[in-house]
This record gives sequence, structure tokens and C-alpha cells, in this order.
Amino acid sequence: MRTVTKDNITEVFTGYFGEDTDPRVREVLGALARHIHDFAREVNLTHEEWRKGLEFLEWAGRITTPERNEFVLLSDVLGLSSLVDMLHSVPEATSSSVLGPFHVSNPPPLPVGGDLKRDFEGEVLLVEGVIQDTGGTPIPGAQIDVWQTAPNGLYSSQDPDQDIYSFHALMTVGEDGRYAFTTVRPVSYTVPSNGPVGGILEAAGRHPWRPSHLHFIVSAEGFQSLVTEVFPDDDPYLDEDTVFGVRDDLVMTYVDQPAGSFPEGLALSGQVPGPYARVDFDLVLASA
Amino acid sequence: MRTVTKDNITEVFTGYFGEDTDPRVREVLGALARHIHDFAREVNLTHEEWRKGLEFLEWAGRITTPERNEFVLLSDVLGLSSLVDMLHSVPEATSSSVLGPFHVSNPPPLPVGGDLKRDFEGEVLLVEGVIQDTGGTPIPGAQIDVWQTAPNGLYSSQDPDQDIYSFHALMTVGEDGRYAFTTVRPVSYTVPSNGPVGGILEAAGRHPWRPSHLHFIVSAEGFQSLVTEVFPDDDPYLDEDTVFGVRDDLVMTYVDQPAGSFPEGLALSGQVPGPYARVDFDLVLASA
Repeated sequence: MRTVTKDNITEVFTGYFGEDTDPRVREVLGALARHIHDFAREVNLTHEEWRKGLEFLEWAGRITTPERNEFVLLSDVLGLSSLVDMLHSVPEATSSSVLGPFHVSNPPPLPVGGDLKRDFEGEVLLVEGVIQDTGGTPIPGAQIDVWQTAPNGLYSSQDPDQDIYSFHALMTVGEDGRYAFTTVRPVSYTVPSNGPVGGILEAAGRHPWRPSHLHFIVSAEGFQSLVTEVFPDDDPYLDEDTVFGVRDDLVMTYVDQPAGSFPEGLALSGQVPGPYARVDFDLVLASA
Repeated sequence: MRTVTKDNITEVFTGYFGEDTDPRVREVLGALARHIHDFAREVNLTHEEWRKGLEFLEWAGRITTPERNEFVLLSDVLGLSSLVDMLHSVPEATSSSVLGPFHVSNPPPLPVGGDLKRDFEGEVLLVEGVIQDTGGTPIPGAQIDVWQTAPNGLYSSQDPDQDIYSFHALMTVGEDGRYAFTTVRPVSYTVPSNGPVGGILEAAGRHPWRPSHLHFIVSAEGFQSLVTEVFPDDDPYLDEDTVFGVRDDLVMTYVDQPAGSFPEGLALSGQVPGPYARVDFDLVLASA
């Protein structure tokens, strides 16, 4: 079409697709272009705003590394990451929640009942539960990949004082599907706010806080992998997680346990004389 | 809001704005998030597609330099750059058209009637016209910043064999508002297609061609600056410019001129014995 106008540009875009274009590519790219065009028309996007948007992307590109991905963070604070999670959540399974940019590959193995915190000090938290199918039957041999921040609020990849596997572990459960590990209670923390995404948050009058959480990737043969998190029900940021990760079924009570009650059969048995906290969090996987 | 769902996430996003947030930021960011959410829901965006999108942005970030801006190119092939141009075009003025990523700052001055092509060989094209206001009155002292590809289809910033100011010039017109320069007739060329944007074009079954054109930025005290292009009416890609830049009023006939007819008073007078082509392209600026 020779004369492109502000009213026909979406139609022109669609007209450029090749005849053999994959239908899904056509659907996704066509919808993407249509929404971008509608957005620009609706807000009457100015050249200056367009340039700011491009500078935002250039800046994000310059600072993105394997350790800090500003594009993932952008997707997180816009709610896109959470929305994609929710679109593919299975109602009968545990809700999925944001992966975030801090997972590391090949975490070290930790036996059931092991201690994730190594030498770090802080309030001991015992995390346990059963990995089960949607009928409530335990899944033997399921794997749970777990990670969290250190007590200073930083993940290992953000903190030169931690080794890269600090607060990262992979646990394989036995016949009873039960996992358990000790750690220090995670803290609320801020997403990185010294880059372009921080600029968006500031312009929007938003804080960069996430409620305290532990991350999990749970996988088992014959089941859909689950990426999720668990949150304590008394966190002040629970109602305003800056990356939209909170779901009702992921909010748990961390129960204070009295001194001397630490259970047997765990790596820290006999080493936790004082009070500690415990959270029971069962993880339900949907069939593949 | 504690429980974010796929249906309320846009509302939650809007609820996160601070009370003092600038109304325009609220409007633009709110509409951006709403369209991104609607897009993801509408196509039921998968995790794999989401990851591909992020990898696209990461790749674009890695290869973007001051000389090659893959984000601008993305905006171009999605039609966003052209749409923003059209949203702010003044109907009585010459249409604006894409700036593209190949403009250079501080181009060297060229007198009216000068030769842009220097030592390059090819069909001589004489480009001339009047810079005028919407009432048809010439604008004395207006400036015209012009650039194009060399005969090999490459801009200076893409081609180590050209100096950076090759086929770039800034002309200041006199009292009559008239500009004129000689060059070689630009060729159709492809946008860079060896990066992630090239992957989009390929997946969409689209070619990377643009019709032949010259770029202009026209500016004058008291007038809105105009970024535009001129296209010959016999170009095979006129109906399918991959960056959506063609407008009716920017398509001109390049008239073949007989040998020996080259006009006096130009830098190349007496040096163009054979046939050449001429295009008359008046440029109309709107008041600031």
C-alpha cells in the first residue's frame, strides 16, 4: 500500500506478512503491532517520549549482563512476567510465580533435611512440605531447586562477598515426597533501582520493594515444572509486591516454635537450642 | 492488592501509582501496561515466547552502538516510528517521514548549487526546490540537512570505505528560499538484516528493502522542524517500504534530462555533458 496513514498502518503491517508465514507468528506479531499502534495513537505519543523509550531500551541493553537482566526486571515491574505465569497456571496445582533474574544454573545438591544457610547468622527458618500430584499423592524423586537472598537482602550474583552457590540448592525427595531444609528467614528487599527500570518506578511514584520470599523450581518426571515462591503472611509489602508475584495460595504463616523443640533427623538437629520459625508449604504439580 | 490475577493485574498496576505521579506519566505508563497485558492475554503468550522476546531485546542491546541502533530499527519495522511521525504531521506542511538511524551530527556545509557526491560515480541527479511556509512564501535562511546512501547502498556509518560525512551536508538557503544540489541517484537498499530485527522480518515473510530515497531535516527560525524523505515514483519497493515511510506527497517524478542541458550556476555546471535526472521537491514548513 503506497500511502501509509496513521489510521491504516496496522492494516499495512498485516498486509506485509508473507503467504507462508507461520500462523502463530502472524497472530503474535500482528497483535503486538496492533497494540503498539493503538497505544501510540491513544496517548498521542510524542517524538520526545518515543526517543525516551528508545533511550530506555539502549540503557537497559548496556547494563544487562548474565547476572543482571534489566529487560527481565522491566517485564517484572510491568506485570508481564506475572501475567504470563498466571496465563499458564493450572488451577489445581500450586500457583506459579516469577522466576526473577537471580536463579543460577547447576545449584549444589542438598539432602532432605539439610541446611541451606551454611555459616550465615539469623533467625532459623525450617521449611518443609510434600511434593504431590493434584490428587494429593506424593511424587517420589521430585526435585526442588530453591534459592533466596542472604540476610543482607542480596542474592549471591549481586554480592561479591558470597560465592555464587550461596543460598542456592537442589534437593531430591524420597519415596514420601517430603522436602525439608533449614535456612535463615528471608528479608524483604528491593529490586535493583539504580538503572532505567528504577527510573520508571520513581516516575510512577512506586517503591522497589518485594515482600520476603523463597524461590522454588519444582520438577518431576511426568509433571509440569513449577516456578513459584512462598511468602510469610505478616510481610508489610504483601499487598504491594513491585513485581506482582503474590498469590493467595503462596502466602503462609511462619509459625514461631519454642526453644528446644527443633525436630530430630535434620542437619541442624541439636544445634538450634533457641526459638525458630517453621513454614509448611506443600507443592502440588500438574501432570505434563 | 494481595491476590493478583490475570484479570485484575492492569487494575493492580494502576493502583500502584503514587498520588503525586505526573498525569502524563500515569497516562502513558498506564496505557502501555494495559496494552502489554491485553496483548499477552489475547495471544495467550507462552513462557517460551516471552523468553524469546527477552532474548530478542538482549541481543538488540548487545549489538546496538551509536552507528547501528537495533531498537530504532525495531521501531521502524513495526511501524511505530512512522506512526509517531504521522501523529504529529501538520496537514498543510510537507509530510514527515522516518529519521532512521543513519543521520550524523554536524554535517559539513554545502553551498546552494553544490555537489553532494564528491568523487562518487553514478547517474547524476539534480535535486532542487523551495523551502516555504504553508502560504507558499519562501523562508529565507532556512537550513536543509540532507543525507543518503552511497551508490553501494551503504550509509557512511555502515561503510569503512567512506568518511563519516560522505553523502551528508548542511545547506543554508538565501532570500529566495531555494535549495539545489547534485548527487548520484540513490538506490533501493535493505535495512540491516543480520541481527534480531532481521529475524523478525524473516519469520514474518517480509523483505528488508526500502525504496530509494533522500533524507532531509529542514529547519528555520519560527517554524517546526521537518524530518522527511523524497522517493522516485518508479521504485519497485514504493508499495512495500519495510519501514512504512512512503507518503503520497513525498513521491516525485525524477525527470530524465537530455545531454547538454545541465543548468548554469551550479558546482557541476560544464561537467555534466551527458543525460542526468532532475527532481523538484518543495518543502513546506508549519509555523512553530
